[in-house]
Amino acid sequence: MTRLSEIYPPDRVVLREVGLRDGLQMVQRYPSTAAKAEWLRRERAAGVRHFEIGSFLPAKAMPQFADVRDISDICRSLNVHSAALALNDRGATDAVQTPVGEIVTVVSSTEEHSQANARRTREEAIALVGKTVELARGSETSPLVQVGIAMAFGCSIAGKVDPDDVVRIAAACSEAGVDMIGLADTVGFAGPDQVQDLVERVKNELGDVALSIHLHDTRGMGIANASAALDAGIRVIDGSLAGLGGCPFAPGATGNVVFEDLVYLCERKGFATGIDLEKLMSVREVAASEMPDEQLFGALSRAGAPRHINWRAR
Amino acid sequence: MTRLSEIYPPDRVVLREVGLRDGLQMVQRYPSTAAKAEWLRRERAAGVRHFEIGSFLPAKAMPQFADVRDISDICRSLNVHSAALALNDRGATDAVQTPVGEIVTVVSSTEEHSQANARRTREEAIALVGKTVELARGSETSPLVQVGIAMAFGCSIAGKVDPDDVVRIAAACSEAGVDMIGLADTVGFAGPDQVQDLVERVKNELGDVALSIHLHDTRGMGIANASAALDAGIRVIDGSLAGLGGCPFAPGATGNVVFEDLVYLCERKGFATGIDLEKLMSVREVAASEMPDEQLFGALSRAGAPRHINWRAR
Repeated sequence: MTRLSEIYPPDRVVLREVGLRDGLQMVQRYPSTAAKAEWLRRERAAGVRHFEIGSFLPAKAMPQFADVRDISDICRSLNVHSAALALNDRGATDAVQTPVGEIVTVVSSTEEHSQANARRTREEAIALVGKTVELARGSETSPLVQVGIAMAFGCSIAGKVDPDDVVRIAAACSEAGVDMIGLADTVGFAGPDQVQDLVERVKNELGDVALSIHLHDTRGMGIANASAALDAGIRVIDGSLAGLGGCPFAPGATGNVVFEDLVYLCERKGFATGIDLEKLMSVREVAASEMPDEQLFGALSRAGAPRHINWRAR
Repeated sequence: MTRLSEIYPPDRVVLREVGLRDGLQMVQRYPSTAAKAEWLRRERAAGVRHFEIGSFLPAKAMPQFADVRDISDICRSLNVHSAALALNDRGATDAVQTPVGEIVTVVSSTEEHSQANARRTREEAIALVGKTVELARGSETSPLVQVGIAMAFGCSIAGKVDPDDVVRIAAACSEAGVDMIGLADTVGFAGPDQVQDLVERVKNELGDVALSIHLHDTRGMGIANASAALDAGIRVIDGSLAGLGGCPFAPGATGNVVFEDLVYLCERKGFATGIDLEKLMSVREVAASEMPDEQLFGALSRAGAPRHINWRAR
């Protein structure tokens, strides 16, 4: 069994809770380290085992992620898988000095977004992915490396994204040695047929590369897109507790696809998640008390799971 | 061309806005007749052509539908298709004395819900459907007759619903001569795979009967279920403006699937709806000012349609 298939068993669905990373990306007020620990501990007790926990960046730029090292330590002690962003050499170098289990790098689908977001070309970003892989492989902790392909379904700057560009970037990153490729609908442009088409296209071109999907619910398509991704064979899906993580281009819009609703979707589709929905929903209390200004989203938290049917099956 | 295919062209998607019926089912305060007229007029200007407008019931029982005759007149003058519920002989008799274009009858999937909701057996309900068809056929206005099969995906009383029961009811109603059969997820139990399975099952058993689907977003699956229904060949879908229409079994829960988001879904999937989303969303003003206590739902109204991509295509 490879390290990858140990962490992401290919025969089941893995849901990654990204609230402590993407969910905090735009907030002014954020949870204390102790509250993040409580968040992780309680989600672990609910059955969640995969988390994105922050970003290796100068604390000045993103103070909400200043404790990413501590959080990776907490994840190790909780025996859960932790992933964190590293967007440059320095971030990756920092990351391998922590027990973080996965480094997430990013390449934008479009040249315009790559320049605006990271001040580098897509080719430079791909080269950086290769260096991160080398660094990870040569480190003692040997974290997995994932590349997230941002704006894979539409770009807030360039508009339409050519699926061929996404496939080309995915192929280059695969050649560079990444363990997993994430298709990211960064600002919620995707529709379900588009998700199915792009996943099938990438799979056709790249064979059995490990794929994940990162969805935003900006335009209400998040759950439908997740359903389409599952239908297309995706087994690793990101979501954030209470749908935290707004959209910088749509003030007031919903954020990431709601993790709780994602659990329900998977179970309704016959995929066992191992997650206790009631316990999971109770963790919203932590988010609510630490970030009282943030709107919490989600349908299950309003309606509750059905009491009359066995919803953990089709 | 039959009357049915004139009203519901089989080669395109028809979205029916049920806010003035299901959306008002549980409200204490409801729009005036003038406001309903404005609602219809503005939605018509946005491109909506199919409405559910109320229920033929004693005004004492449901005062929000006391003006259903006037509303059916307004629909005629606007040249839009109007449907309204008639749940007994008297309702159907009243309905054919108005210009309402379609009578909607209801049969529950489960004996328990049939008794609790309508104080009759399912067999009695099916017999009533037959009488309604006869009455409609023999009337001057000759409205279409649809049967909505309530709780088709799960029942708030009996729990699990046997798909065979739904198929059997659908077959009996088809034999009784209904023009269309609606599969209703009355309180939002369905998941996308279940939708696809049931639609395929009904189609396999009944051949090319006209089918519609009525979805609630109680547990956030509404858009995913609509997408699955479209994938399974359904071309007539109900939704309500701003997702009006709560769930009596889940206070605070979302109601019908949000009409605006449904328009977006269809367009993203390549189905032209003929509906102007901006104009449609502006009609929320009418609902907001007439029913200030009701929560309005919807993702498109928060985020807006994408400005950077041509979202009216895959």
